[in-house]
Amino acid sequence: VTVDSTAPTAGGARIPGLARRAAGITGSVIDSSTSLLERQSHDIVRFAMGSPAPEAIPAPAFAELLPAVLGQGSSRAFDYGRTEGEPAFVDALLPFLGAWGIAATAEETIVTAGGMQGLDLAAKLLVDPGDLVLVESPTYTNGTATIASYEGDMVEVPVDHDGMVVERLPELVAAAGREPKLIYVIPNFQNPSGTTLSLERRRRLVELAVEWHAVILEDDPYGMLRFAGDHVPGLRQLSGGAPNVISVYTLSKILAPGLRLGWVVADPAIVARMIDAKQGMDTCANVPLQWLAAAFIGGGGMDAHLEALRETCRSHKQGMTDALAHELGDGAVSWTDPEGGFFLWLTFGEHVATTELAEIAIAEGVAFIPGKAFSVGGRFENALRLSFATNPPERTAEGVRRLRQALDRAYGDSWRNLKG
Amino acid sequence: VTVDSTAPTAGGARIPGLARRAAGITGSVIDSSTSLLERQSHDIVRFAMGSPAPEAIPAPAFAELLPAVLGQGSSRAFDYGRTEGEPAFVDALLPFLGAWGIAATAEETIVTAGGMQGLDLAAKLLVDPGDLVLVESPTYTNGTATIASYEGDMVEVPVDHDGMVVERLPELVAAAGREPKLIYVIPNFQNPSGTTLSLERRRRLVELAVEWHAVILEDDPYGMLRFAGDHVPGLRQLSGGAPNVISVYTLSKILAPGLRLGWVVADPAIVARMIDAKQGMDTCANVPLQWLAAAFIGGGGMDAHLEALRETCRSHKQGMTDALAHELGDGAVSWTDPEGGFFLWLTFGEHVATTELAEIAIAEGVAFIPGKAFSVGGRFENALRLSFATNPPERTAEGVRRLRQALDRAYGDSWRNLKG
Repeated sequence: VTVDSTAPTAGGARIPGLARRAAGITGSVIDSSTSLLERQSHDIVRFAMGSPAPEAIPAPAFAELLPAVLGQGSSRAFDYGRTEGEPAFVDALLPFLGAWGIAATAEETIVTAGGMQGLDLAAKLLVDPGDLVLVESPTYTNGTATIASYEGDMVEVPVDHDGMVVERLPELVAAAGREPKLIYVIPNFQNPSGTTLSLERRRRLVELAVEWHAVILEDDPYGMLRFAGDHVPGLRQLSGGAPNVISVYTLSKILAPGLRLGWVVADPAIVARMIDAKQGMDTCANVPLQWLAAAFIGGGGMDAHLEALRETCRSHKQGMTDALAHELGDGAVSWTDPEGGFFLWLTFGEHVATTELAEIAIAEGVAFIPGKAFSVGGRFENALRLSFATNPPERTAEGVRRLRQALDRAYGDSWRNLKG
Repeated sequence: VTVDSTAPTAGGARIPGLARRAAGITGSVIDSSTSLLERQSHDIVRFAMGSPAPEAIPAPAFAELLPAVLGQGSSRAFDYGRTEGEPAFVDALLPFLGAWGIAATAEETIVTAGGMQGLDLAAKLLVDPGDLVLVESPTYTNGTATIASYEGDMVEVPVDHDGMVVERLPELVAAAGREPKLIYVIPNFQNPSGTTLSLERRRRLVELAVEWHAVILEDDPYGMLRFAGDHVPGLRQLSGGAPNVISVYTLSKILAPGLRLGWVVADPAIVARMIDAKQGMDTCANVPLQWLAAAFIGGGGMDAHLEALRETCRSHKQGMTDALAHELGDGAVSWTDPEGGFFLWLTFGEHVATTELAEIAIAEGVAFIPGKAFSVGGRFENALRLSFATNPPERTAEGVRRLRQALDRAYGDSWRNLKG
């Protein structure tokens, strides 16, 4: 939507001119797909949003816990809570995180409205207009959106099968002519590529950040969802809990996105400033669902839940790579094969334009996010992101069949060839 | 907390230097009082937070509605929702607002994480560093905090018994040497003064904003809580729904703050940009509590609830002014007598320092917010805000008695005299 501040309306009032930073506020193709899909009346296989499979959300357990959690008639669950997070939730969270190798004290933790708010808090506190911010390419749309909203100057770093190509950083920083303020990285089962940053690269990244006095913004929604290969320690862990690593987590992928609950682990001095900033954003996270999550996690429900969720992700991923091999295997199409998380990344020959293809695909009954959404520089027009998390194999097979039909409709046989 | 970016820690990493805007991010004395009070083990009468009375929150109705709302085992309530708000919630909200004279279409509405996020969205989209923003004096701490976080240049406008002294605006704008970008105003039962902007001033404010191409940010959490006097139409209503008036509402005061649900009514072009901005902040509001609020409001529960709540506020306000007259009536103390809302404002002789008094009062077992918190220029050290909403008359009487004891302890008899 373009805001025209020149046209006065009845009464002489004008649509106001926006702040300079608004030019960088673009919205999210991913989030908007929720509304877009709600407006469709035909059957659509949804590979677009990064939502857990419906059957993987422990809604029955939530329904069972809620009456006791909220207390019959108790109003305290509906009052304001502490900005830093409800004590019950933080108390349940910290030992759970500790068991996962994420060491954090209460002073190092702030509860947020999903992981997204953790990114917003970090960018708001750290990024001045024009600051150099290194981001993966491709990377999570909304993460770069929040950096853009604070007018950070982003440089894209290529991603390969071992995640961000850290070896390229010195050269990119030299070319930028100044040291980075922030390095935004999704180390595990990266959104959208599904790749994981290797241990060697993690170590090097931590060194480089110290050298540059840069902050690493570690966005790790998927780390607990590994279904193959070996665990790799997190960046904050590898840094020894250094004050220049800020780690952002969320329940959105490992429990339920609708709760809008996440947390940041960072140096206490940073967390204190995040509490200040959050008080000027939304006061505190919603209280009843913090209490619900506290009861679920504190009651020991997460271990069995995560085990089942990882198995769901594994079988759904297998269903998707099987379907891709079946439907697209004879074409000039490649895809990543993640060891965890929600997403894989498809790359076509250069003549395939996935922004257009997405519209045809919706008509055919399948939704994905076009590749361009994942690059601030508009790259990856010939790629797309598929979420394998949501759908079981049979449904995924149908969705991938529809994707192939959309390709046939848009490109005839030419998508099978690199050049078309 | 001061962040020292000069001291390297083990491994050579430093606590990062913050963005320039972080200097304006100060946190909220109000919100921090939640944590402060949780740390006290002795009995404290709470006049600090603007929380509804516990018995006024319809927790039993919520508990009854929840199972049906969330559905036994349905996971949809725990998935991502639309950024602009759950359709069920918006559908319930709009006719309810219409009945209150607040005309809004779905395109003019975005659901937010409380009213606070509405203020944050407006300030983020509109305020450039150095932009002139007019604010009431005193005014809501967190509102000015979010404006400060975007480096708006605030000028304080006095408040009298008819709200913001709009007559002073031309002179203040002339002195500032430039036209305002934003005018932040709480028209009904203002926080913290409890005063209401008169109809005449509202009309003049709407005219001046058009003349200056300024945006009116109308923050109206309390408008439905009038218990005396006559309703005054809102600023957006008086402007004829002009695009330069943005109205911010919340369920925090009229239903329950812990839900963290509010909404903005504004021009569709502004709402569209707010949707973009919110996607880079927290994706969407929590879904289960939107469904709960939809069921409560859509089921017609609000009318009886608001009627009871207004009566609670009225009797609690009466309890407070009676207690003030009883305990402080022979001193040089004045207070406002609001016709609605949650707050009243006490002013002492100039030698009384309420920041210090607040600490003594906590020890005596009563909590309030010192006046200085409500001024970006540090005014009102000799004033304080009392929330009368939370406590019934007997408890309020005890709290005001403790406040008088704190005054006696701090000032002997001198608080009874203007000069001390």
